[in-house]
Amino acid sequence: MSDHLHRLPTGPVDLSAIETDVAPGFDGGKSEGKAALFELGDELSDLQERLFAEGRSGSPRRILLVLQGMDTSGKGGVLRHTVGLVDPQGVRITSFKAPTQEELSHDFLWRIRRALPDAGYIGVFDRSHYEDVLIARVRELAAPEEIERRYTAINDFERELVDEGTVVLKCMLHISAAEQKERLLARLDDPTKYWKYNPGDVDERGQWPQYRRAYEIALERTNTPHAPWFVIPSDKKWYRNLTVGRLLHDALVRLDPQWPDADFDVDLERKRLIDEAPLT
Amino acid sequence: MSDHLHRLPTGPVDLSAIETDVAPGFDGGKSEGKAALFELGDELSDLQERLFAEGRSGSPRRILLVLQGMDTSGKGGVLRHTVGLVDPQGVRITSFKAPTQEELSHDFLWRIRRALPDAGYIGVFDRSHYEDVLIARVRELAAPEEIERRYTAINDFERELVDEGTVVLKCMLHISAAEQKERLLARLDDPTKYWKYNPGDVDERGQWPQYRRAYEIALERTNTPHAPWFVIPSDKKWYRNLTVGRLLHDALVRLDPQWPDADFDVDLERKRLIDEAPLT
Repeated sequence: MSDHLHRLPTGPVDLSAIETDVAPGFDGGKSEGKAALFELGDELSDLQERLFAEGRSGSPRRILLVLQGMDTSGKGGVLRHTVGLVDPQGVRITSFKAPTQEELSHDFLWRIRRALPDAGYIGVFDRSHYEDVLIARVRELAAPEEIERRYTAINDFERELVDEGTVVLKCMLHISAAEQKERLLARLDDPTKYWKYNPGDVDERGQWPQYRRAYEIALERTNTPHAPWFVIPSDKKWYRNLTVGRLLHDALVRLDPQWPDADFDVDLERKRLIDEAPLT
Repeated sequence: MSDHLHRLPTGPVDLSAIETDVAPGFDGGKSEGKAALFELGDELSDLQERLFAEGRSGSPRRILLVLQGMDTSGKGGVLRHTVGLVDPQGVRITSFKAPTQEELSHDFLWRIRRALPDAGYIGVFDRSHYEDVLIARVRELAAPEEIERRYTAINDFERELVDEGTVVLKCMLHISAAEQKERLLARLDDPTKYWKYNPGDVDERGQWPQYRRAYEIALERTNTPHAPWFVIPSDKKWYRNLTVGRLLHDALVRLDPQWPDADFDVDLERKRLIDEAPLT
């Protein structure tokens, strides 16, 4: 289980004290890490299918994986390499962008609730309701009292999800400012990556300390026992992908989803098929 | 290119004359077929990412993969093994069930239009608007004139999609009645598959010839030059998965999606990053 390695302790958070370029709990380098993730695939797939089967039989249980992190921290990479290991039929991915006019006319959780996965699914949020206390705080997109209110609203919302049978797995992909700079420069050096580059990202980067502080406050105030935060060293992409995979795996193992019993008479059905009239 | 092997010729369709347990165009058995699909993965992923990148830069192009076939023909298997090869961020899967009351209050294409993929995406329909001329015909869920109208409505709709820049790739997964029987019995022999078994499937199976006829009519009447049908021998699961993968690959190669140009000044952006003020 990877939980204890990355589970954020309660209390004040100092992100600068959490290393980004390390691989705790894993003996080996990049190629071993990639192989370990690939090997995890079969078991992840099996557990996901059980969860899906359970959901089809009336169980309300589901998983919500929340991915947060600075630009270039690798939310997309986790989706491709880790979430991509399981059957896409059982996954619902939502990438949250700047809210639309309609979304802004509602409470900040309105669009979030609409994107929740159905029972039996693994829902993945690429950015999430946390943006409403991150960029919203740094860019002053809402009044301070409203930002303040949101931390409690988020905790209440997540409590409600957990009570309904949702595992809320919150991962912060933690990179250093130097690593972000390298990744942005790499996008400029590769014409197949231009489309991922947005000059606005550099403006946001200029506010790095403000974003870090906003993350620290958000992590501290929403690091609840029912929906704790995991901070994942993410300078090493392979370690980031593997670690989210392991956390997802552990969450599924703890859920221990069960193949549903037959809600029909198995022997009778077998007999119907074997004794069927010619198909004419 | 796999197209010519499976592309349905225009004119009357006789499904009983199309073999289900064959693997045309492939030299090798199951293990070679699985390896070939796996090898296709990287290229499929690359092409899909290009399509996605193009879509982010204003191109309207997209792919709609329509999967049809009798129960147990393997629509789910194609989703897991073939569609599962590409980045789940770029895929939108919709599984169509019996229409809801709200859906029934609209034209049959209403729910279909709402499920169309965004530009740059690969949309996959697990069942589709074709159910409205298949089960709807066999079970007389609509008046004969309405069923009649729908063939033309489907052709017009698909014409419109193609004109907007959508590749409409229609695959019928073709199995024999004997193969279906084996697969249904296999579900009864394996408690981890009970959840996939529905006694109603055996009732539908009793109408096999009527379904086959409904398929033949639908295939014949909607096998248009802009959105032709592919009939894929599907008794061999590995061949089915590989063939859909190859058809998807060929469609992407023909589209030839391009990495977008930078819509910013690359040198200036590099300079901004290199010369940035300290992040304090």
